[in-house]
Amino acid sequence: MNPIRYADLLSVAKEQARLGAAEGGLPIGAALFTAGGDLLGRGRNRRVQDGDPSMHAETSAFRNAGRRPHYRDTIMVTTLSPCWYCSGLVRQFGIGHVVIGEARTFSGGHEWLAENGVAITVLDDPECAELMEGFVRAHPELWFEDIGAETPATE
Amino acid sequence: MNPIRYADLLSVAKEQARLGAAEGGLPIGAALFTAGGDLLGRGRNRRVQDGDPSMHAETSAFRNAGRRPHYRDTIMVTTLSPCWYCSGLVRQFGIGHVVIGEARTFSGGHEWLAENGVAITVLDDPECAELMEGFVRAHPELWFEDIGAETPATE
Repeated sequence: MNPIRYADLLSVAKEQARLGAAEGGLPIGAALFTAGGDLLGRGRNRRVQDGDPSMHAETSAFRNAGRRPHYRDTIMVTTLSPCWYCSGLVRQFGIGHVVIGEARTFSGGHEWLAENGVAITVLDDPECAELMEGFVRAHPELWFEDIGAETPATE
Repeated sequence: MNPIRYADLLSVAKEQARLGAAEGGLPIGAALFTAGGDLLGRGRNRRVQDGDPSMHAETSAFRNAGRRPHYRDTIMVTTLSPCWYCSGLVRQFGIGHVVIGEARTFSGGHEWLAENGVAITVLDDPECAELMEGFVRAHPELWFEDIGAETPATE
């Protein structure tokens, strides 16, 4: 049995992020896997595409995975550090491991998750960071809306 | 101008909880209001009805309220203390006030929210507690699935 390569899992989430970007949406993707690396569900942020503020990438992947009796042995892979909303999802449902593409452009609740027993892996993937940097530069108002923050005033 | 009566706001969430119960779903309802008491969106837990584990009552109300630039002056009213997932939603989107029907049958993240500057009002409403107690007695497996926990063994 081959060991799971986190970069391979991240590639599924990155494909979702790229699809989101191509649709004009926020370039954030996620996927939920079994501990053995089988895909349970994947998704991308759907704020722009569906006008739905409740569908962050992680919640979308979780939704698409459907009902399960528990999530102990699952891995949530996301291109961006999970915000408090998505960190709360991970904690409530007992997802055991979160693999994060990058936490450079935004740092959410992953340290809080680590303090509460969730395994955290940050890959610091350059493509994930580039996707976010480009999007925030082009559409700051959409990014700040997505995290419930005010767009900073520019000079 | 009349002061807002929290019991009136809760009645909107309770109606959602009763509708959910009538559909065979979890009897938990929520509604998002402006600070002035205008309804922005309401919803109920949709796990059973839609097979959707991502739609807790609060996320459903938030979704139905649609996109907004910010949530500072909004009130989230829920029949039950918000779980970590829904508490994360409140914190991330800066919802200023959470009004809770009851926290007797389940206590989620509302104390954490209070520590982080969210106003919390617990009404300790008997009907909310009765709805939950009856449901958990009749369908323990659905309740524990909804909070990502194992159903305790019975004797």
